[in-house]
Amino acid sequence: MKRSFDALSERYLSIRGESRQIAEPLSPEDRVVQAAPFASPVSWHLGHTTWFFEQFLLNDLSDYRPFNRAWDRLFNSYYESLGERVARDRRGLQTRPGAEQILEYRNYVDEALVKSLERGDLEAQKIDLLELGLQHEQQHQELMWYDLKYLLSGQVLEEAYSTTCDIDRFESGSPAQWTSVDEGVFEIGFEGEGFAYDNEGPRHRRYVHPGQLRQGLITNAEYLAFIEAGGYRDPMLWHSEAWAWKNAQAIEHPLYWRREADTSWSEYRLSGREALDPRAALSGISWFEAAAFCRWADWHLPDEAQWETVARSDARSFEFGQLWEFSASAYTAYPGYSARKDAAGEYNGKFMVNQMVLRGSSRATPKNHSRPSYRNFFSPDMRWMFAGIRPFRYTF
Amino acid sequence: MKRSFDALSERYLSIRGESRQIAEPLSPEDRVVQAAPFASPVSWHLGHTTWFFEQFLLNDLSDYRPFNRAWDRLFNSYYESLGERVARDRRGLQTRPGAEQILEYRNYVDEALVKSLERGDLEAQKIDLLELGLQHEQQHQELMWYDLKYLLSGQVLEEAYSTTCDIDRFESGSPAQWTSVDEGVFEIGFEGEGFAYDNEGPRHRRYVHPGQLRQGLITNAEYLAFIEAGGYRDPMLWHSEAWAWKNAQAIEHPLYWRREADTSWSEYRLSGREALDPRAALSGISWFEAAAFCRWADWHLPDEAQWETVARSDARSFEFGQLWEFSASAYTAYPGYSARKDAAGEYNGKFMVNQMVLRGSSRATPKNHSRPSYRNFFSPDMRWMFAGIRPFRYTF
Amino acid sequence: MKRSFDALSERYLSIRGESRQIAEPLSPEDRVVQAAPFASPVSWHLGHTTWFFEQFLLNDLSDYRPFNRAWDRLFNSYYESLGERVARDRRGLQTRPGAEQILEYRNYVDEALVKSLERGDLEAQKIDLLELGLQHEQQHQELMWYDLKYLLSGQVLEEAYSTTCDIDRFESGSPAQWTSVDEGVFEIGFEGEGFAYDNEGPRHRRYVHPGQLRQGLITNAEYLAFIEAGGYRDPMLWHSEAWAWKNAQAIEHPLYWRREADTSWSEYRLSGREALDPRAALSGISWFEAAAFCRWADWHLPDEAQWETVARSDARSFEFGQLWEFSASAYTAYPGYSARKDAAGEYNGKFMVNQMVLRGSSRATPKNHSRPSYRNFFSPDMRWMFAGIRPFRYTF
Amino acid sequence: MKRSFDALSERYLSIRGESRQIAEPLSPEDRVVQAAPFASPVSWHLGHTTWFFEQFLLNDLSDYRPFNRAWDRLFNSYYESLGERVARDRRGLQTRPGAEQILEYRNYVDEALVKSLERGDLEAQKIDLLELGLQHEQQHQELMWYDLKYLLSGQVLEEAYSTTCDIDRFESGSPAQWTSVDEGVFEIGFEGEGFAYDNEGPRHRRYVHPGQLRQGLITNAEYLAFIEAGGYRDPMLWHSEAWAWKNAQAIEHPLYWRREADTSWSEYRLSGREALDPRAALSGISWFEAAAFCRWADWHLPDEAQWETVARSDARSFEFGQLWEFSASAYTAYPGYSARKDAAGEYNGKFMVNQMVLRGSSRATPKNHSRPSYRNFFSPDMRWMFAGIRPFRYTF
Repeated sequence: MKRSFDALSERYLSIRGESRQIAEPLSPEDRVVQAAPFASPVSWHLGHTTWFFEQFLLNDLSDYRPFNRAWDRLFNSYYESLGERVARDRRGLQTRPGAEQILEYRNYVDEALVKSLERGDLEAQKIDLLELGLQHEQQHQELMWYDLKYLLSGQVLEEAYSTTCDIDRFESGSPAQWTSVDEGVFEIGFEGEGFAYDNEGPRHRRYVHPGQLRQGLITNAEYLAFIEAGGYRDPMLWHSEAWAWKNAQAIEHPLYWRREADTSWSEYRLSGREALDPRAALSGISWFEAAAFCRWADWHLPDEAQWETVARSDARSFEFGQLWEFSASAYTAYPGYSARKDAAGEYNGKFMVNQMVLRGSSRATPKNHSRPSYRNFFSPDMRWMFAGIRPFRYTF
Repeated sequence: MKRSFDALSERYLSIRGESRQIAEPLSPEDRVVQAAPFASPVSWHLGHTTWFFEQFLLNDLSDYRPFNRAWDRLFNSYYESLGERVARDRRGLQTRPGAEQILEYRNYVDEALVKSLERGDLEAQKIDLLELGLQHEQQHQELMWYDLKYLLSGQVLEEAYSTTCDIDRFESGSPAQWTSVDEGVFEIGFEGEGFAYDNEGPRHRRYVHPGQLRQGLITNAEYLAFIEAGGYRDPMLWHSEAWAWKNAQAIEHPLYWRREADTSWSEYRLSGREALDPRAALSGISWFEAAAFCRWADWHLPDEAQWETVARSDARSFEFGQLWEFSASAYTAYPGYSARKDAAGEYNGKFMVNQMVLRGSSRATPKNHSRPSYRNFFSPDMRWMFAGIRPFRYTF
Repeated sequence: MKRSFDALSERYLSIRGESRQIAEPLSPEDRVVQAAPFASPVSWHLGHTTWFFEQFLLNDLSDYRPFNRAWDRLFNSYYESLGERVARDRRGLQTRPGAEQILEYRNYVDEALVKSLERGDLEAQKIDLLELGLQHEQQHQELMWYDLKYLLSGQVLEEAYSTTCDIDRFESGSPAQWTSVDEGVFEIGFEGEGFAYDNEGPRHRRYVHPGQLRQGLITNAEYLAFIEAGGYRDPMLWHSEAWAWKNAQAIEHPLYWRREADTSWSEYRLSGREALDPRAALSGISWFEAAAFCRWADWHLPDEAQWETVARSDARSFEFGQLWEFSASAYTAYPGYSARKDAAGEYNGKFMVNQMVLRGSSRATPKNHSRPSYRNFFSPDMRWMFAGIRPFRYTF
Repeated sequence: MKRSFDALSERYLSIRGESRQIAEPLSPEDRVVQAAPFASPVSWHLGHTTWFFEQFLLNDLSDYRPFNRAWDRLFNSYYESLGERVARDRRGLQTRPGAEQILEYRNYVDEALVKSLERGDLEAQKIDLLELGLQHEQQHQELMWYDLKYLLSGQVLEEAYSTTCDIDRFESGSPAQWTSVDEGVFEIGFEGEGFAYDNEGPRHRRYVHPGQLRQGLITNAEYLAFIEAGGYRDPMLWHSEAWAWKNAQAIEHPLYWRREADTSWSEYRLSGREALDPRAALSGISWFEAAAFCRWADWHLPDEAQWETVARSDARSFEFGQLWEFSASAYTAYPGYSARKDAAGEYNGKFMVNQMVLRGSSRATPKNHSRPSYRNFFSPDMRWMFAGIRPFRYTF
């Protein structure tokens, strides 16, 4: 038992350390600013993930003295059941506590948590919440990448996060070969040992419709062909809401692209702005754009059952892990799903409307934080996450 | 052949006449005003449905002289491929042509169309479009009911449409009995003779998950219990987006309800405002509210495959037809669906995002305009359509 | 005494009749629609001016039976002290009562009022309010012209109000001659017999600074030169708030102008759209645009004391009456001004911020509704009133 | 001559040092965040004031090497004529350069500027611009106080800027005695040696209307009486636009006040939140609120000519300098005023619409940066500047 707690402590400290490392190259200024209402400051991510452990694991330990009760309102994200909180779009107005104090807070909570593990203070349910906390922290690590890229790219100076960073250098995968999706009743959803979010279950049967999934993701060159063919100007390719959105936002290309004075295209990457790489996998697009591209190319997005059965099959011949992959599935509850009744129940269920499912994982997804049943989700107009297109085609 | 054209003419004139009848009790003022950006003026409905026939059937007949080319921009709804049009939220600013002229336009097009039927001028494809036009007109008839109720209810004087109108007196159906939904692979989607929209196909297999559908719709009394239990104040019951929406709009009860000075509840109906009928079927709620109610009651909404297989089964023991019924399904394409490439292809496919499917039909749905495969759809925040809740429960 | 009441009755009925005449050529649809949040439906104007007489003169007569108490909320404009009212931007949603009923309401109130005049029921204070009501009705007559022109011009069909209407055919006046503005202490503000609004007093001394006022108003040709010189694209000519406003609204020319395919300019007038008349007086511009034009031309707008002293002087050589004339003066209270404490006190004082004064009158101003002390006022971004530019220049 | 340049250098360095001192107690996080669209980050103030000197004085010296051309877009505020710039409401998204680099920029420019003074490189016109730059920097010093107070007060932790700071401890002045304003023609506007902004001239005659100015400013206690009398709920006291603004923003008390659980009032000050001091001078209100208060109290705001003639008179018995004082005057050009045609001409003139004049100075106004002719100006809805009320009353 002691051994497993040692291992858990080690895993805890390792994951916690990764968050700090992501923030490392950033100045206090970089960490406090909120780049958009849908993004959060990096310092807030560092505080919020810490608050999660304090709130769900430490606060009701008899000998735990909270670091600072006044900070609860600051670092609650969206748990309506856990009291007042700073409105999401005002997170970036909180300049106190500063970057240093937040790191102290992390250390304080980490020490208390490791000590409670050593002493065996945490009962089984708490161990589950510890696991949830670690998964939660890993999710925020990925969000930190999205948010800091968005922040740095939106500035006049367009400085690099690090000139050697290649976390957003997405490979498109093997050439344009296609893998069969077999027809029939299959089970999807999580089952077995290990952690999974509640939204990945219950495991259940689905009738899967046949077709083919492409082994390689859509490349920048392929998307450029769509742009040059007038894809952004042809309303027949777009959903009605997408067309209005695109026009209102004056969107004409992926998020980090820019047409230079000489008409060539460049892309902002975490290592700095550079010429667009035509062979790299396309990213920085919304589901709206992915759907318009597919309609133009006479392809489709796979639904999540198609994707998952191929991803599970031994014979699958695609590798995911470069970019989250848009699906044709809206994010709704699996049959038999009910959200937990406690605060942790606010984790997933309450987002199950007006969002689309993405499958797989990206280069910014922490190790061991991906599995074939994982259901990520974003609004169809979001563009800042690391997501790309794996096309599907019918064969009948 | 002549006979069938006679029958078609008769059917055409009968459906066209029904639109006029709905508008009958309304003044020119009632017909021109647009009650909300999501609604349309009744006169616009009368013009637009006429334009549809003119545009898709008459304009390319060699001897047809358009009624007035300048009106095309006025009565195009959302066909991006068919030229410029008045922005949706500015339809109500067009006071010319007036109610009388629009009725003349209807007569002109009706005469031309009936004559072309008599002479056999319309080839098969046009007959398909004629059918589409009639179905389209029937859809607009139902929208006219929604729009005119919304308009009249929003006025200081709250006058009745007609004191004898009972089209919005919704019955909740048989007492609280439940019908089984069987498990297994079933086919859903339209198949066979007769008209169906493209979004009802292709017919395809689905794995249906078991449970029970209630025979009666949720009543006003049941919803009142939800309100009195604080349902509108408990964030745990709501989707995150729904909670923000509800707060921003200060929504605390169904659309046409009002709490009177004596704390009793009244409801605006097309026959005038009256005391709320506790046994009537609940209407005037959004999908957001339907979902919150179900979570509170520990029920669910059925998905569209569950609903359709029961609605098709001989043994089904529920009758639909009072109110459209919210489903748990987001409105997405069926496997193998592709929108037509011509203007008629804009009919359905381009709305397949951020909308929820409703099944069944309402008291305002024209006769023969409903079938088990019919997929209606609205944004989850829309409340003015005639929709209610048929709860589903799992039995495992 | 009887005679004077007869004269008053006659004047009352004559002014009331003019409102009806303005509405005459309009359909019920034209009368009910609200073209913009800052405009009102013509039917509302007809109802509101009637309500004013009912509210301030008739309601407390012992034998007066109100036409319909439920209408009070409909036709109160902005009198916070007189109970609830329909929000200004929702006036156009009220389709009941219709045009006919509102004319009945007018007749009903007119009969009651004339009878009370005949019987001598109105004490002196009421006679003052009757005068205020008539002045008020005349103000609304002018607003009806603005609102109906804005409504008709904004439509796809752009129909004429009447092909013979010349009320918006503004003459620029005598050629470009200038009249001296003398320096010194002068009295401005209303004094003497007859009606004036409270904001025209108290009469008081001002130090007037010398210069010259042009006898002719700015012409369309002169403004065209400003446009062609890039006036709408040079930020140095604009107030900061004006520049932001112009860009947000994408404004590039006066309100009713349009650049045709052949690059010529046309203008919508109440008699229909026609080629722009270069010699006509410019209208359809905001104060923001007037100020930018003057800066470009190295001229100024006169302040209201300069304008009024010239307008009063016998020797004045300009005629006003074509268009309201923008001044350089913000609309603030004269020294010693205090708004009345009753409802009528809401008439003027509460608008004394963020508005600019306009002087003179327009072709749409009813007869006898103008005088040198009259202070009209609009927000600097308003364009739909009949207003033009009379430039001022310094001679030192 | 050398001596005067020495004195100028000294003055320059002293003023520049004061900006740094204001920022001293603030963290890098505090300095980068933009608390509202109308506020700016402290770091931006530090950069922008430096850019002003670089732009207007150094850039065209032959041997000057700009610190970093790429920063120009960052630190241009609103000079349309000086090229592209970051939109005002996006200043807070620029995290690079950081606080340290901006201080280096300040040092670099300071050295270059002092050296150019020593060498006598600056011709007379440049010396004028140097003076303008210093005045400009002092204005920004005051804005820094407003912005940093707004930032810190809006945070969950509500930390103090410094527990010993008393810059926002405003004294109301001598007891409620009144000073006469004499009637007659007086000259106002700047004249003489020394610096003044262009908007303070030309000096010109005004007819001043008599009355009395109170020697003491309105106190918190007096304003509390207004609140308790229902001042925020009585529409008759408010301008129409003010009433709509107040309701939309849910404003019920001055900016930094809070009603505590025990119903007592507290106020955030730069030294921390404390019980409201009833005898202190009221601040944190808009012109809209000042006008409503005056109407309630049956007082007025003085116009700027009244204020200035008293402030200039030897016999004046009020001291200004605690808070800027709202006037009844809209901010418009003095007779004969024309803005300069170069970039510096954008300094004042382009704001001359929809703003009200404030006179005097506040505790946060740098020494020597106030004079009787000084015209400060803000929109009537702004509340974050240090402004209060000195009432005026008529004696006739």
